[in-house]
Amino acid sequence: MAHALSLGRRGLGRCWPNPAVGCVIVNQGRVVGRGWTQPGGRPHAEPVALAAAGTLARGATAYVTLEPCAHHGQTPPCAEALIAAGVSRVVAPLTDSDPRVAGKGFAMLRAAGVEVTTGVLADQAADDHAGFFLRVEQGRPWLTLKLAMSLDGRIATATGESQWITGPRSRRAVHGLRATHDAVLVGGGTARADDPSLTVRDLGVAQQPVRVVVSRFLDLPLMGNLARTAKDIPVWICHGPDASDQSQQAWKELGARLIPCQLDGGRVDPAAVLQALGEAGLTRVFCEGGGQLAASLLAADLVDELHVFTAGMALGAEGHPGLGALGVEHLNEAPRFEPVDLIPVGPDVRHVWRRVSQNRLV
Amino acid sequence: MAHALSLGRRGLGRCWPNPAVGCVIVNQGRVVGRGWTQPGGRPHAEPVALAAAGTLARGATAYVTLEPCAHHGQTPPCAEALIAAGVSRVVAPLTDSDPRVAGKGFAMLRAAGVEVTTGVLADQAADDHAGFFLRVEQGRPWLTLKLAMSLDGRIATATGESQWITGPRSRRAVHGLRATHDAVLVGGGTARADDPSLTVRDLGVAQQPVRVVVSRFLDLPLMGNLARTAKDIPVWICHGPDASDQSQQAWKELGARLIPCQLDGGRVDPAAVLQALGEAGLTRVFCEGGGQLAASLLAADLVDELHVFTAGMALGAEGHPGLGALGVEHLNEAPRFEPVDLIPVGPDVRHVWRRVSQNRLV
Repeated sequence: MAHALSLGRRGLGRCWPNPAVGCVIVNQGRVVGRGWTQPGGRPHAEPVALAAAGTLARGATAYVTLEPCAHHGQTPPCAEALIAAGVSRVVAPLTDSDPRVAGKGFAMLRAAGVEVTTGVLADQAADDHAGFFLRVEQGRPWLTLKLAMSLDGRIATATGESQWITGPRSRRAVHGLRATHDAVLVGGGTARADDPSLTVRDLGVAQQPVRVVVSRFLDLPLMGNLARTAKDIPVWICHGPDASDQSQQAWKELGARLIPCQLDGGRVDPAAVLQALGEAGLTRVFCEGGGQLAASLLAADLVDELHVFTAGMALGAEGHPGLGALGVEHLNEAPRFEPVDLIPVGPDVRHVWRRVSQNRLV
Repeated sequence: MAHALSLGRRGLGRCWPNPAVGCVIVNQGRVVGRGWTQPGGRPHAEPVALAAAGTLARGATAYVTLEPCAHHGQTPPCAEALIAAGVSRVVAPLTDSDPRVAGKGFAMLRAAGVEVTTGVLADQAADDHAGFFLRVEQGRPWLTLKLAMSLDGRIATATGESQWITGPRSRRAVHGLRATHDAVLVGGGTARADDPSLTVRDLGVAQQPVRVVVSRFLDLPLMGNLARTAKDIPVWICHGPDASDQSQQAWKELGARLIPCQLDGGRVDPAAVLQALGEAGLTRVFCEGGGQLAASLLAADLVDELHVFTAGMALGAEGHPGLGALGVEHLNEAPRFEPVDLIPVGPDVRHVWRRVSQNRLV
């Protein structure tokens, strides 16, 4: 199952809106087939592994990281394929919460006499499929927020110097995070100030994540990196109702997808942004700031995981803060996280936190 | 030697201005004597271990964490004691940089026919004796700075709420840090705002660290915790030349030791404070803020080690920053640190950093 999970993770960021599933078929102690959800979400992991196994699938055990699907979508149901191939046992950690599956896959297998074992490495599988589940259950993608800051929580000096606070190994880790998410999300201020390209570089990925910018007035540079490459790598812009027709027209011509969102307190409503991104099929979104967008996501309790890269330098109170205002007056109102990982990254330190919340799903 | 080092560390914070040395005497594979520098700095580690070993010291090996002393101070030289007891070999990681010793201890031993081995676990010993060496070589104590902050570098909400950001396990770790330093140092603002007692609690220590407050005008509450307990546990106040005679008189009567220091840019000069504390015998000082004092120590490149306790909450840009202004305009002017330790502490994360500096001694 651990091997199947690691295969499944290869699809993270590449197969939305489908879950990134892995499958290993074992016959008499020998691995005879391996598969994972392919780019774009099809074929699923099971048919890939079954094709590799061929006739050796007969009587074998299939380790699948999520309940095999039971519905006829653009592909025939995987449960049927497993039965047709003569698999005698299926081990899967979790039931798929998609209402079209939701136990029907396991039922179909059992009805055909296939032994079904569940619960194995369920926590790890729940982590891997958290974005898929969140979208199915709440309509929004999993949100990972990155903060790369000095020891005292600053992202630039008073004069605006920010390159580079963290080292090359941290920046490479950020590219790895981009690659395992369906989309990279930034605020309009960051898009204007840094003119980022938001692509995954030097990791040999075949498919780039969608680039999403939140910009109320759509006042983004029409000659920048995002504008220049929007026809090749998707650029989606979440804008407010008051973005000018002229800007909308210009960005449409550049190839961007425009997503109108309602406002909340004068800013594009972060909950509306995530709902819209979920509707568009995204399951995992990676936010890289800036401080205003990060703060509004935190204030709305929408940040599921936080990756903080801390550099070994102090910039002092006059530096730019990594997070904008949160409106927290008392400690018991502060968004809270629990530590899940702690990793030295060359001269920097990376700490990973998960949301502590009453209504956490996974 | 590892055992001797761990014994030596028992004296940290308790034997200034002397180094916290450990000594283990081994005869034919059996530990026959153990000792460490006693509170107040005397007796030294070697005579304690020799007394325990008695006649079994004859022909034995003594593992000592620093070169045995060679000068007649308030105690006879330890090198002589080792020779007199008939020890045949001394293993010590480092030469003592105190000019009264500085190789003379080893020379005395060798002249008497005792075999001397050096260099064993020298890095660890250098860490343990860093404060002692720094005082001998630069006249100032080792400075450890603590920052206990939210994920975004804040130490209180906009309304000033600060108790508690970090959890009980982090606060206990802070008491452990107080216990292994000769003194705890805070700024006048913190002394006024928090009315701290700055003592080590719940760790069963017999000797409390000196409490040092930096306060230019000596305008500290005369009815607070420090004032109330100054006769029992030392309170030292580093003040500017413009502190009123009345305040000076009041604090003297309360039992505080007053240390006049020069100003630098309108504030008590942090370098002058550390020189004065070194002159008074302190080898290890633990600064707990506030943000202004921490910033002035960082700006003067006087922070040797940094212990950051990060809590899993965000307070936003309107919260109080953990560090005051540093005057850093460009990234290459920022004080820099390298990570040396990374420890999960319940719901918090502790990261330990060491100064990166051209003129670092240890």
